[in-house]
Amino acid sequence: MQPTLRPFLAATPDFRSGADTPRAYLERCLAALDAWEPRIHAFVTLNVEAARAAADAATARWRDGRPLSAIDGMPLGIKDIIETADMPTQFGSPLFAGWQSRKDAACVAALRAAGCAILGKTTSTEFAMSHPFADTANPWDTARTPGGSSSGSAAAVGAGVLPAGLGTQVLGSVLRPASFCGAFGFKPSAHALNKTGSHDPQSQSCTGIIAASLADAWQVAIEIAQRAGGDPGWPGLDGPDTLPPARKPRGLALLETAAFAGATAEARAALAAAAERIEAAGVPVLTRRNHAIVEAVERDIADAVALSLKLSDWEMRWFVASAAARGIDKLSPATRERFKIAEAMTLADYRDAMATREAIRAGYAELAADCDAAIALAASGPAPVGLASTGNPQAVVPGSLLGVPALSLPLLRADGLPLGLQVLGFMDRDADAFAVASWLTDLLRE
Amino acid sequence: MQPTLRPFLAATPDFRSGADTPRAYLERCLAALDAWEPRIHAFVTLNVEAARAAADAATARWRDGRPLSAIDGMPLGIKDIIETADMPTQFGSPLFAGWQSRKDAACVAALRAAGCAILGKTTSTEFAMSHPFADTANPWDTARTPGGSSSGSAAAVGAGVLPAGLGTQVLGSVLRPASFCGAFGFKPSAHALNKTGSHDPQSQSCTGIIAASLADAWQVAIEIAQRAGGDPGWPGLDGPDTLPPARKPRGLALLETAAFAGATAEARAALAAAAERIEAAGVPVLTRRNHAIVEAVERDIADAVALSLKLSDWEMRWFVASAAARGIDKLSPATRERFKIAEAMTLADYRDAMATREAIRAGYAELAADCDAAIALAASGPAPVGLASTGNPQAVVPGSLLGVPALSLPLLRADGLPLGLQVLGFMDRDADAFAVASWLTDLLRE
Repeated sequence: MQPTLRPFLAATPDFRSGADTPRAYLERCLAALDAWEPRIHAFVTLNVEAARAAADAATARWRDGRPLSAIDGMPLGIKDIIETADMPTQFGSPLFAGWQSRKDAACVAALRAAGCAILGKTTSTEFAMSHPFADTANPWDTARTPGGSSSGSAAAVGAGVLPAGLGTQVLGSVLRPASFCGAFGFKPSAHALNKTGSHDPQSQSCTGIIAASLADAWQVAIEIAQRAGGDPGWPGLDGPDTLPPARKPRGLALLETAAFAGATAEARAALAAAAERIEAAGVPVLTRRNHAIVEAVERDIADAVALSLKLSDWEMRWFVASAAARGIDKLSPATRERFKIAEAMTLADYRDAMATREAIRAGYAELAADCDAAIALAASGPAPVGLASTGNPQAVVPGSLLGVPALSLPLLRADGLPLGLQVLGFMDRDADAFAVASWLTDLLRE
Repeated sequence: MQPTLRPFLAATPDFRSGADTPRAYLERCLAALDAWEPRIHAFVTLNVEAARAAADAATARWRDGRPLSAIDGMPLGIKDIIETADMPTQFGSPLFAGWQSRKDAACVAALRAAGCAILGKTTSTEFAMSHPFADTANPWDTARTPGGSSSGSAAAVGAGVLPAGLGTQVLGSVLRPASFCGAFGFKPSAHALNKTGSHDPQSQSCTGIIAASLADAWQVAIEIAQRAGGDPGWPGLDGPDTLPPARKPRGLALLETAAFAGATAEARAALAAAAERIEAAGVPVLTRRNHAIVEAVERDIADAVALSLKLSDWEMRWFVASAAARGIDKLSPATRERFKIAEAMTLADYRDAMATREAIRAGYAELAADCDAAIALAASGPAPVGLASTGNPQAVVPGSLLGVPALSLPLLRADGLPLGLQVLGFMDRDADAFAVASWLTDLLRE
């Protein structure tokens, strides 16, 4: 079976005309689910009945010309660290087996209000950290990881089971699996989507969207923002009601992040070829070899993983302590190891790490004077073989640390497998990042 | 029975000498519980066995001269919207009857790490909003409300059942009940204590402490901050390891908030008498009659309640929508009413309200040039008669809107009942607010 993306917005004109319906769309998803799920194990919990009821209601609204939103009836998967009133939320951990929140997270409540058909909960690594207790596989090669921690949403969207799924990213948990599974991945600016009721309290963590098209990714995000806003006290995702149109950038910075040095030859070549086509289209590509700020940014983000882990360790310390008190033997060795490191930290260490992050963010912001976005590999290569690890997040951690909008576009290939082109925008200018991503998609998609 | 505050830190020298023990202290609390609880209904859930085990462990540590913290063994009550791994968290709502979080909130995990003996969950109004499903009563007069929404913590501390309890405040939910029950109340600067795992996601909401002494209040707060920090991405409560020493202020602003106009004659007289003693001690009292910034601040905060409700309505909208979907008939009429208002709001309305709040905060910050804190009534009078309403928060909402540290000190009386003197400090200068509060307590306590 060949994975094929299944966009939703592209189908909606037919919902309006009556040539197609959200219910029929859902049934096609369910047929794909039957075919794929035994091979990819993307779901922890399904609620097919509720999804069908929601799709039927949406079908009636489209028929009457009164959809609740542009994504009324869209089937969705929700990463299993995000609360749902009708299904358990299990954190990818045996300590939360069967746990019920009795409420929807802010983003889920918003999506229901927009008419979406929530089909099920998708697998997450343990606490959206590193260890995959689930055996979710990559639809492009089931011997390979789908990436993590938003493993199930990426596998389901990559396979064509769903048009979109929610994930979360504190290090690389949306963009890495999107890259590995050949889907579009979007991590908004920090705090741009309300993550209350999602169990990723870390300051640089975000609710993200893995989707079958750029338009689907933007639409899901903006519909959440319009109904539930950003994190309380933040202005929330800003931008138009539908996908920002493609706009040719003044310039693009090419970031050879720490991951680039370890990238496969094919991956490096794919990025170089993309850069050539960008320059051939008349857009200057700034690199550390010809631009001082790019050089400074690359130096600043070289330790993005270590700094991000430090911040996250402190911010998750109380949670892991509480989980450990309920059964330390039920925690993965990786989480136990991180907990030891966290226990040795002080509030002063945390404040220092935050100050370092602030300085790095300020340095990156200077790039905006000369370019409209940065591009980079979204991974050092295609998904690695094996399901025991979800791969290395290194390539996409800078976007998390910087708090900027970041996308993975399925425009590159390596070893015959998907590889994402990463686009990094500027803080709270998510729509501008999409405008560049649209332009790149038009340019680089054959 | 006469309510008597039962401070903890004052007892710890005897723990060190062996003349007293945390276990014996807890047993005195339990004796008070037996006497008071049938009259005040402060607790939703008790875990006496766990508290005794924690007190025994603390007893051994004090005996060995190795307490985990200055509050090792302190019996505590936790407002029932804050998660505890060993007890249900029920939000004061029938929709969450028996609900288990399977984890401790950040503040609870921190307090356990500090050795505290968590005795039980204290009553909250529905979702820490306005409606009291519980029949918690005021220990000074059980025909009167203890205030809310942190009703149970205030009633238990006011009665002398506990040295301290946790509350939360988005409008007036810590300071109002502290005032009504004759306890010390402390609402920190916004974001200064980590509220992850507490179900008050609103941007101006804070974890607060209701305590039997200023020293106990400060100690509980700083021990939380040192172990769990502030909200993720914020620096966390800053200040010394023990109660900041009393410091005579350069000047104090006297705020006659909107509540002052409606205050009882006795309450107004009590505040005026306090202001006279402050001036007699050589500290200038700035009022709207003699100081332009005070006048501007009073104008700015006149609508603090309406603006705070607007912000909170939007921030709770998705939550109430999710609760309503599970059973709108199980919501109080007051919450249903607020939900209707919230449903009519847009993200743009919310952004406008945030901008207004920012402007008001900037105006208040200018006061710091001429004084070290502001004082005001913590309520318009003593606790009103009746348990169907927890009273009007108006007097203490400005501190919430401003995001500044605020205290209620049990230094005034009206109609023979407790009335709090409110102290408002400046953002992120919580220790300075305590230094003023200590000075005022020394001055005004007979």
